[in-house]
Amino acid sequence: MNYQNMTAEERLWEYRRVKAAYDALSKEKMSLDISRGKPSAEQLDLSEGMLSMPLTGAECITEEGIDCRNYGLYEGLPQIRRLFSKLTGVKEEQILVAGNSSLALMYDTISRAMIFGLAGSKRPWCFEEKRKFLCPAPGYDRHFAITERFGFELITVDMTDQGPDMDQVEEYVKDPTVKGIWCVPMYSNPTGITYSDETVERLAKMQTAAPDFLLMWDNAYAIHDLKSHGDRLKDIFATSEKYGTEDRVFYYTSFSKVTYAGGAIAMMAMSLNNINIMRPIQAVRTIGYDKINQLRHLLFLKDEATTRAHMQKHAQIIRRKFDILYRALEEDLADTGIAHWSKARGGYFISLNTEDGCAKRTHALCKAAGLTLTPAGATFPYGIDPRDRNLRLAPTYPPDEELVKAAKILTCSIKLATLEKYLAKENMQYL
Amino acid sequence: MNYQNMTAEERLWEYRRVKAAYDALSKEKMSLDISRGKPSAEQLDLSEGMLSMPLTGAECITEEGIDCRNYGLYEGLPQIRRLFSKLTGVKEEQILVAGNSSLALMYDTISRAMIFGLAGSKRPWCFEEKRKFLCPAPGYDRHFAITERFGFELITVDMTDQGPDMDQVEEYVKDPTVKGIWCVPMYSNPTGITYSDETVERLAKMQTAAPDFLLMWDNAYAIHDLKSHGDRLKDIFATSEKYGTEDRVFYYTSFSKVTYAGGAIAMMAMSLNNINIMRPIQAVRTIGYDKINQLRHLLFLKDEATTRAHMQKHAQIIRRKFDILYRALEEDLADTGIAHWSKARGGYFISLNTEDGCAKRTHALCKAAGLTLTPAGATFPYGIDPRDRNLRLAPTYPPDEELVKAAKILTCSIKLATLEKYLAKENMQYL
Repeated sequence: MNYQNMTAEERLWEYRRVKAAYDALSKEKMSLDISRGKPSAEQLDLSEGMLSMPLTGAECITEEGIDCRNYGLYEGLPQIRRLFSKLTGVKEEQILVAGNSSLALMYDTISRAMIFGLAGSKRPWCFEEKRKFLCPAPGYDRHFAITERFGFELITVDMTDQGPDMDQVEEYVKDPTVKGIWCVPMYSNPTGITYSDETVERLAKMQTAAPDFLLMWDNAYAIHDLKSHGDRLKDIFATSEKYGTEDRVFYYTSFSKVTYAGGAIAMMAMSLNNINIMRPIQAVRTIGYDKINQLRHLLFLKDEATTRAHMQKHAQIIRRKFDILYRALEEDLADTGIAHWSKARGGYFISLNTEDGCAKRTHALCKAAGLTLTPAGATFPYGIDPRDRNLRLAPTYPPDEELVKAAKILTCSIKLATLEKYLAKENMQYL
Repeated sequence: MNYQNMTAEERLWEYRRVKAAYDALSKEKMSLDISRGKPSAEQLDLSEGMLSMPLTGAECITEEGIDCRNYGLYEGLPQIRRLFSKLTGVKEEQILVAGNSSLALMYDTISRAMIFGLAGSKRPWCFEEKRKFLCPAPGYDRHFAITERFGFELITVDMTDQGPDMDQVEEYVKDPTVKGIWCVPMYSNPTGITYSDETVERLAKMQTAAPDFLLMWDNAYAIHDLKSHGDRLKDIFATSEKYGTEDRVFYYTSFSKVTYAGGAIAMMAMSLNNINIMRPIQAVRTIGYDKINQLRHLLFLKDEATTRAHMQKHAQIIRRKFDILYRALEEDLADTGIAHWSKARGGYFISLNTEDGCAKRTHALCKAAGLTLTPAGATFPYGIDPRDRNLRLAPTYPPDEELVKAAKILTCSIKLATLEKYLAKENMQYL
């Protein structure tokens, strides 16, 4: 029954019923976690072929005569750059294949901007007295943390089902202290939406007051479809080249959720002009990245077709996990009207909105009952959700039976938090 | 015969003889390279056991229950931190085990200092109008390149056979704009010397005008002995703790020349105070490093004894390479008195001094005859050797037969360059 249509008395009865259920769950002293987008052991097992693959020194010599066991080849193995190119549509010559962390590549881009500036910068960013960064929210907490750490003022932009609210973005970028925007353009973390063609077009086309505006294009879920017909994302480099704005695009993705989380390889792509500017700085930092791991990935993932087939196996597992959570949400919450959640077509997350003012309390109730959620507010700049309603759910990691229990705690806690709010408002002595 | 004792006529004869030999070598159109400290294929083959070792998912779960295939454990695997601790004497809790490049860790330390400052900094270094860095020379060009790129004025400090000239260092650090010093304290690149106990003591003890002085302790060759009784380096952390200066010490090493160059793992170590300051910044950059590669190293290198036994196999190969070069230098140059070279007890390099003004010409002559040397001057700040005499020789990479030929070109070119200098001085029409 819809909670809003209940009489005060009905709510009190419902509160007692839910509270009893919550207390019973709490007594089980569970320790569950759906807080981070981590692959499950079952998913990791999919790449056992890479782990167990014996290599010989001879296999480490590429067709170009490069010994992957020795120094050199800063840009990464040509064949693995080609594979990333096939999978993303980004031109091979724009791609650098690096170490295990795309997040580190993003941090390094902004770190370089701070010390050296970017193409078009009047000065290094550390000398800009005021610096702001656009953060479409709900969004990815680790993105926001980087720009917060570097002293940017974080500006919240509303996420729509087409991507960031472009009216807001176009207004904000008239401010020359607005230096960039964080984007997860496909299967966005956490709302799961893919930017519409119009959004991509407007991000490429918009005039920015800052001559060194930075479009942080974290295409983390580029090949992470959950449905048989995946979303399609408009090509950001091709689009920006049309408007001569390709220098603003810094593109990232990784195989962290293809093979091993933290044990895979990441890539970044830039305009050729940016490569010419950045490469001499990057080249001072390291002689090169781990080519043996690149080679292992190449031998295991082989080509686009094999990689996509491999991703289908992930999708099968993840769909099952998502469905467990969806089923519980549907069964327990659909008719209450107190929560709304995204239906992911890809990626790793479900974004759930409670009623205003109930997210933190839900998080606390879950915690007390043994379920760790991503902290309420984490999906917003400074960890503050102005309406205190958004929760990011990451169902991939736990085994199925744990996920079933986690879902129970979650829906029960949402109900309880909402009823507490109602009852507090109605000023009843429910405790 | 000693070149200096020759008559003008003898020199002319010698010139003609050497020139003919040089021309004959040039005609062979060789393509040889002793420019970088790269391990030979024979050395890389020593770690075939790690490359070919099949792993299972089950083996990726550590005794602490950590799945190396998944995110987390920023500091690295406990067991591999322990191994680095055993090998270096640095306490386990001070050690971070990271990705493949210790150079990147060094760059990142200075990058962080630029943007955030270090313990004791009055402000981030980018806001210091003047910044200087001490560069013991001959030294490592990639070190110098980092501080040059970050806009430091590079100050040359003379290298002695005890380490950097500490009288000079102690004088320079009275200047508050002198922010740090580059050190390769063991088997120094390229002179091969190990810092004396007194040098280590004075580096730890010295009063620096900068409250955030940075001792970059790149112990790259910590376990890279060539003799059966290796050099011993005084413990920098223990020594600096005695003087309360441990916050100045940033310590680095890697397994790049233990297993695979560019495919191994690196470590850094800091005081606990620095860890508390740096970790929140570092943790924003990445969730963690590649633990699977750490695990592979652990399973292959096992413990201190196995690692040291493995290093003995490297030493055997490298000694042979060094001996080829030494033999040629002795035979061809010893009695001429025109060059002096270091006798390495460890590490990867021979440092050779020609007569003043002959290094660049030697490099050019070698190049023209098909032998690539590290550019003359590279071992000095800004690539400028004030006496134009130092050459860094890296004999490890080429196969033996190529090294024999390389040595021939080298000694012949040194002779030719020196004779050209003499003859030019004597104003003779030798061309």
